[in-house]
Amino acid sequence: MVVEIISVGTEILLGNIVNTNAAYLAEKCAGLGLSCYYQDVVGDNEERLISVINTALSRADILLLSGGLGPTQDDLTKETAAKALGKNLYLHEPSKEAITAFFKNRGLEITENNWKQAMVPEDSIVVDNPNGTAPGIIMKENGKHVILMPGPPNEMIPMFDNSIMPYLSELEPGIIYSQTVKICGVGESKAESMVEDLINEQSNPTIATYAKTGEVHLRVTARSEDEKEAKKMVKPIVKELKGRFGNHIYTTQEDVTLEKAVVDLLVANHLTITTVESCTGGMLAARLINVPGVSEIFKTGYITYSNKSKRRVLGIKKPLLEKHGAVSSEVAKDMAKRSALFAKADVSVGITGIAGPDGGSEEKPVGLVYIACNVCGRIDVKECHFSGNRMKIRESSVSAALSMLRESILAYYSEVTFGEKK
Amino acid sequence: MVVEIISVGTEILLGNIVNTNAAYLAEKCAGLGLSCYYQDVVGDNEERLISVINTALSRADILLLSGGLGPTQDDLTKETAAKALGKNLYLHEPSKEAITAFFKNRGLEITENNWKQAMVPEDSIVVDNPNGTAPGIIMKENGKHVILMPGPPNEMIPMFDNSIMPYLSELEPGIIYSQTVKICGVGESKAESMVEDLINEQSNPTIATYAKTGEVHLRVTARSEDEKEAKKMVKPIVKELKGRFGNHIYTTQEDVTLEKAVVDLLVANHLTITTVESCTGGMLAARLINVPGVSEIFKTGYITYSNKSKRRVLGIKKPLLEKHGAVSSEVAKDMAKRSALFAKADVSVGITGIAGPDGGSEEKPVGLVYIACNVCGRIDVKECHFSGNRMKIRESSVSAALSMLRESILAYYSEVTFGEKK
Repeated sequence: MVVEIISVGTEILLGNIVNTNAAYLAEKCAGLGLSCYYQDVVGDNEERLISVINTALSRADILLLSGGLGPTQDDLTKETAAKALGKNLYLHEPSKEAITAFFKNRGLEITENNWKQAMVPEDSIVVDNPNGTAPGIIMKENGKHVILMPGPPNEMIPMFDNSIMPYLSELEPGIIYSQTVKICGVGESKAESMVEDLINEQSNPTIATYAKTGEVHLRVTARSEDEKEAKKMVKPIVKELKGRFGNHIYTTQEDVTLEKAVVDLLVANHLTITTVESCTGGMLAARLINVPGVSEIFKTGYITYSNKSKRRVLGIKKPLLEKHGAVSSEVAKDMAKRSALFAKADVSVGITGIAGPDGGSEEKPVGLVYIACNVCGRIDVKECHFSGNRMKIRESSVSAALSMLRESILAYYSEVTFGEKK
Repeated sequence: MVVEIISVGTEILLGNIVNTNAAYLAEKCAGLGLSCYYQDVVGDNEERLISVINTALSRADILLLSGGLGPTQDDLTKETAAKALGKNLYLHEPSKEAITAFFKNRGLEITENNWKQAMVPEDSIVVDNPNGTAPGIIMKENGKHVILMPGPPNEMIPMFDNSIMPYLSELEPGIIYSQTVKICGVGESKAESMVEDLINEQSNPTIATYAKTGEVHLRVTARSEDEKEAKKMVKPIVKELKGRFGNHIYTTQEDVTLEKAVVDLLVANHLTITTVESCTGGMLAARLINVPGVSEIFKTGYITYSNKSKRRVLGIKKPLLEKHGAVSSEVAKDMAKRSALFAKADVSVGITGIAGPDGGSEEKPVGLVYIACNVCGRIDVKECHFSGNRMKIRESSVSAALSMLRESILAYYSEVTFGEKK
């Protein structure tokens, strides 16, 4: 079945708030196997809201509306939706009692306009709202389901999870199962061209590519009668992708980020890590430290932004800085080497570069970044050229460092395995 | 004029990402005095996208589309929008060169599908994209303006600010002038109640409040025939706000962030700074270092995540850690004190807290964070209680630290001025 998500509220149209409700409902509906082709945002305006509802009724089986159920004059979602379906409102005694209790429990006096919230459309299902005064509404008319929920996420989310989702899962027999294959070290267009043939043959399961900074995510989605079957359909595609992207795949789990994959790899190998950052100024450490459990392997990080700091904190020699410049593979390498010693860490990453907007030159332009990864004494250095503003260059540097660090650790162990290192 | 915001992307329909672009564009358009009555989200599907575009053309003067300009198969926004306006595509040489350079700079090979991004609609304005390979497009047809921007926020936002916004401000008859009064150290609801009366009387100029992490922005917007007049209308309101919020206002300039205001304050007073972070793990340093010119005052930062690191890097005494625990005002204070000495900095900020999800206890719950600001030996310590997930708690900590640092510097100098310090 097809669902359309309609968010009602002038505050969304003005950009005062981000529409997180739509994202929440969209993800849940996808999980239920409902197809969502459109989301709409419209203000608290009867004429426009009714046109949105009518358009949605013409192209979807289920309308999920949130917002505009409150007690004030601008709140007209319920009245408008009822009008669109030609239903009258009546006073719903249980809702009136619930509202009375809600205010009584909080020692508040009820203002007259609250009774508006106890008015519900005829032959509709009234959905209890334990977290607020506006009940939810489910209306059914010629096979269409129009569902009204309050706007505040702390009311909408529990109502959806506890009352609306069970109702919806009854409507849609099939289910959707997706798995995301996350890739680093391969550009979006390169990755796309590597799966173009699979995408062209796609129907069920489908494959979609999502570009992230320094990463590409491939989402494989299957629709089927039951979950077991859907998983069985996804499996061979994921296997095929693993064959094509090999080590560039850092996870196939929804909740694993690149930084978590790196931290997990370090933890699994009992490797402690330190970071020494110049242009990224702590961003690499900050991403690693956002992973719960990182304390097992991350003890210390250094931000050596000035040359003096590189010398005083790490003891990098003045002649080295003068000969090659702070932004050079030699200094990046020395930063990684020395930070590992100072922090007594097994692994270290050094980043030095020119994030701009100033400080660039003919032979060392803005965007030039050197990254050094030191894994138990095995040091890789990479010269990168990034473009964009200062923040973009720094974000790209951090993503590249995480991706490179992962490769260096894997390379180290493969060499150990093949006996090249002992 | 009326604008409609159309976000294109299956990942939004599936709820994989929250539609922050729409909120950003909505806020900016409101600031330009453009009316927005509808926002739409549609997937990467030609038939549906064209129907959304046609509906939008029937009810808006300006269509702002973001997403679907990439090199991949699903990216068909440009082709579809051109088709809707009956325009053919041609190979745009400058874009081809830009794409070639983009890949060359990164030492990457160009895959064939990238040339797709250099195809642009006839008689359209091609907008440079310094942060990616897909250029923006402005098409004009019978008084309607159809504007295409890339989906990734780090490409879309700079393109909108630098190229699209100037174009849009030309379109609106009369001019809109707005000034943003940026406030820190005051909660959103407190700030709103402090300007409620002004907002209720608002017509022209208008006042809108925007809540950011740890900040509140008040935008005063006037519409008038000429800029001089509009500025004259805004001035008394801004003056009134300055009277109400005083020192909590850190800037009235659009392009000044809280971190920039802090860096400017340090530079103006020739104060060098160092940071020592535990739970925020480099996020504070990273924000400061995103300000160009920070090198004048930021030399070194420390990330001392473990107790051992706090001892080894800063020499914090074991008994202190054992007596009060790493998350305590005493340790935060000692971190600030010692880091200033070690880095030979005038100012230092120490942050230690429990970001969760684990590590909380009855008397030290998740979200408990201590921030210490040391300005030339004058040390303030603050106990904060933040809620949300690990990232949210860390972001709130950094914003609070920046706000507190600013207050500490101002307090230091006011005391100096009043001769309480010498």
